[in-house]
Order: sequence, then C-alpha cells, then structure tokens
Amino acid sequence: MNRKARREIVAFQGERGAFSEEAAQKLFGSTIEVLPCQRFEDVFRALDRKKVQAAVIPIENTLHGSVHENYDHLLHFDLPIVGEINVRIVHNLIAAPGVTFGKIRRVYSHPVALNQCLDFFAQNPQLEKVPFYDTAGSVKMVMSEGLTDSAGIASAVAAETYGARILRRSIEDDRQNFTRFFALRRPRDAGRIPAKAKRGIQWKTSVVFTTRNVPGALFRSLSAFALRDLNLAKIESRPLRGKPWEYLFYLDFMGQVNEPACRNALGHLRELADLLRILGCYPRGD
Amino acid sequence: MNRKARREIVAFQGERGAFSEEAAQKLFGSTIEVLPCQRFEDVFRALDRKKVQAAVIPIENTLHGSVHENYDHLLHFDLPIVGEINVRIVHNLIAAPGVTFGKIRRVYSHPVALNQCLDFFAQNPQLEKVPFYDTAGSVKMVMSEGLTDSAGIASAVAAETYGARILRRSIEDDRQNFTRFFALRRPRDAGRIPAKAKRGIQWKTSVVFTTRNVPGALFRSLSAFALRDLNLAKIESRPLRGKPWEYLFYLDFMGQVNEPACRNALGHLRELADLLRILGCYPRGD
Repeated sequence: MNRKARREIVAFQGERGAFSEEAAQKLFGSTIEVLPCQRFEDVFRALDRKKVQAAVIPIENTLHGSVHENYDHLLHFDLPIVGEINVRIVHNLIAAPGVTFGKIRRVYSHPVALNQCLDFFAQNPQLEKVPFYDTAGSVKMVMSEGLTDSAGIASAVAAETYGARILRRSIEDDRQNFTRFFALRRPRDAGRIPAKAKRGIQWKTSVVFTTRNVPGALFRSLSAFALRDLNLAKIESRPLRGKPWEYLFYLDFMGQVNEPACRNALGHLRELADLLRILGCYPRGD
Repeated sequence: MNRKARREIVAFQGERGAFSEEAAQKLFGSTIEVLPCQRFEDVFRALDRKKVQAAVIPIENTLHGSVHENYDHLLHFDLPIVGEINVRIVHNLIAAPGVTFGKIRRVYSHPVALNQCLDFFAQNPQLEKVPFYDTAGSVKMVMSEGLTDSAGIASAVAAETYGARILRRSIEDDRQNFTRFFALRRPRDAGRIPAKAKRGIQWKTSVVFTTRNVPGALFRSLSAFALRDLNLAKIESRPLRGKPWEYLFYLDFMGQVNEPACRNALGHLRELADLLRILGCYPRGD
C-alpha cells in the first residue's frame, strides 16, 4: 500500500511500539512515519482532517471480542477500510541493555497484559507485578528512568523503539490471542476496487445494517447472501441502546463489491434493511 | 433466587466491591456472602467443586464486546446459566472519609476505567492519573494506606465495602456503558424450568453451535428459529482457531426450552449443526 516516494504518516492509538504500530508496519511497510494518538476518536479525526495519510485501528480480539467503539467511529466518519491484518499478541519481558533476568524484581505493564502472563509470574514469584497505563509505555518508562531492577511487558516493536532488550520472549499464557486490525484511508485515497478480482486475491466486504424489529428479519437479510452462495466471514448483533429489540448487525462476507453477485446481494439487502453502510472492501488479511 | 435460610456464597472475579459483586447482589440479594477469585477460571472451578453455591460472570459489554473467555468456560464446564442482568458501569471518585475534593492530587484505578473518565480529568488538570490493577482494589489501597491526597475510581459498592466516601458520582464519559452478567449454578441446583412460562415472565435461552463450512450454513441454521417465529436476541460468530472458515456461533433467543416451538427449533438446529450446546434457559434480565 506504499504508493508514494514521500513517507506516509499513519495514525494509531497508543504509545510508540504499541501492537497497533506493529500492525501499521505490516499493513503499510516498515518505513512509515507514525502519529500516536491518545484516543481512538483522535485517530479517526487525524485522518479525516488530513493530518495523516492513513490510520490503523483494532477491531476485534480473539479473547476480548469486538471493539464496538471503533465500529461506532466507522459509522460516524466516512473513512473506508482498505486492508486488514491479524496480529498475534506476543508479550515479551523487556529491560534496559545490560540488565539480566536475575536482577529484575518489578515488572510494569498494562493490567490486561499482566493478567495474560499469570503462569510466568507463578513460575517467578520473585517478580512483583506493577500496573502501568500502557504496555509499550512501560518499556519507555523503564528506559527513560534508567531502571536496573525493573522490566516492562510489551511487543518486540516496543523493545526496538526504545532501544531495550528482550529478556524473555512470548511469556503469555494463551498463544491463541490475536487482534484483527483495519487499515483506513480517506475515500479519495482508498484506490479503485477493480471490476474483477485478480486470481489469488480473496476480497472481503464489511457492512453494517439494521433491520426492523420482527421475527425472521435477520434470516431474510441473510438470504441476500445465502441465495447467491456468498460465504459469510463474520456476523454479530449489537443492541441499539434506547430501542429495545432493535439491533445493529456487523457482517463481513467474502466477495468484492463490484462483482455481480455481491452487487446484487447488497441491492437485495438494501431492500430489507432500514440502514445499510458499506464500511469497506479490501483484500483478505492472513 | 435466594431459596435457603443459610446464606449462599457466590463466586466472582475481582476484588470485593467489583462491578461483578454489584451484579451478584442484584441477582442473588444483598445478604449473600461472596468469594472473590483471581481468574474467571477460578470462579467456574469454585462452583464446579462445590466451594460456592452460585457464580456471577460478565459475558459482554456495550463498549468492549463479548468476553470470549467466559464462553469457553461455559462450554468446558457444565454449569447452567440461571439468570442475567445488565449493570450500568458507573465510575465514582472515592476517597477516605474527611478527605475533600480539593485535597486530591492522585487518582488510582484500572487504566480502562481511567480512560473512560477522560473528560473529568480534562476538567481537573490538577489530578494525576495513576494506573492500578483493579477498580475496587484502588479504593481498598487508598483506605488501607490511609492516603489523604489520593482517591480511587470504582463502583458505589466499593465505597461501601471499604468504608470510603464518594466525592464525585458518575464521572464516566459515556453513560451507555453496560455490562451483561450471567448467574450460574450447578445443574442439580439450577431449578426446574417450568413446562409453560408464567404470564409476564419472558424467558431467554442461550446456545452455542457450530456448522459445516458451506455457504448458507448459518442461514439454514437460523431457519430453525425464523420458521417458528422465534425472536433472536443475540447472534455472534467466532472463528474456530486452526480451522479456517469454521465458526462457533453464540445465539440467544426469546423462549423457553420446554415450550413446543423452542423444543422443535432446537431439534431442527441439532439436525443442521455439528455441535449444539444449550448453555441455559433463564428469565430475561432488565
């Protein structure tokens, strides 16, 4: 997706070295510049206001489910999804160069990360868990404070970013911890979706829709895809607050919006849905 | 659900005063005894091994999505869902009695809670955010250490539990932050589900199923409900790791497993699904 000689700036939420930065490098190449933001909303706004050329956001995690807030921002901003990637969340014990494992007494990280490494802490009772506001931020702090009895838990990118060293790799309890990230651009920069997909490239389309509050409404909506043999890759309902029994549905299907079967399916769904928004059409990630 | 004179013990994950304890009080009454556990797995195990009579677990949140880990435990343990409740996540600024708002300089809480109160911190730049491992735990620590310049952010139940005072109520940015909790019992204690629902009580049934990897598989599965005019309350797909294109589905529908339409729908779904597990049948929560 790196199409320009000038280096692109990509916005993400978190500190430098966050898992989102790892996703950004995989999606846009390792030579990008980045703009770390405090909130997800800041990420969308930075792209919308042309402070950056692209953005990367987490959309779901295999342990923690969908990031509904980012679905809300995808509905509110007109910033199409142009790519996706699944990143395995690997937690590493990271300290300053020269500091050995035997010297470590305190381990800083986000409580969610600390809680994903409980087996490691059970095996190393000499280590005290200390909560910190961010995974990558814990490595930044250990380095800037020059701590020699402390380590952080974060991504390998965080170690590289702050010139720190990985003392123990992959200390997480569960290796099945993946986060799916979306790459976003502005509509004019999203690139034309070809009329026909190239051989070997599988396309995915993400939509959000609502249906009327009647039994069988979702069933009828899915007929738009089933009758055309289109494979679904995700479906999730989300209650509409303040409207009991009305739902938003997140749906991903395999296919490319310009292909006839997909175009017809979306036309059919539009007849049945109160609201239908196409969030993006993009090559399927690994 | 309080059926015995002897006080019941209810397990939950987190410190005393956690939102799960608030849910437990609402589900089982305020006179219960509780067993706080470190991990979700410990909660299930405590109930399975008869250390407690019931358990309460969070299953989904309006901002953060489904707690997949607890769906995994529901599949692994045979501990039926017997009730549900939605709890609004209200964050309060809590300090020791006698400490006034003007004295507060540091505010401890779980980073997720701190990040849900950013407007409050923007309006009060004199306050430093300090990450802590737990919301209720931050109040416990402020009290046990006798801090007079610090506060925690946690539930009202946490203030009550530790004899602390609420200085500012409901300081969260987003009032649409709800967590849905399940009440669990052992199969023998779950109580008989009546053959016919009493007037005024709406029942909900939660199931998990997998389908074969063919287009339209979910569509056919949902026909079991649509053809019988049964209303769905939740549907969510979850990829089966290591089996590309195979999915687990979480599905909640309105109805009671002993009623003919529901019994027939589940029989029909069993024909179509590779795996089908009924996780519980319970009165719909508020």
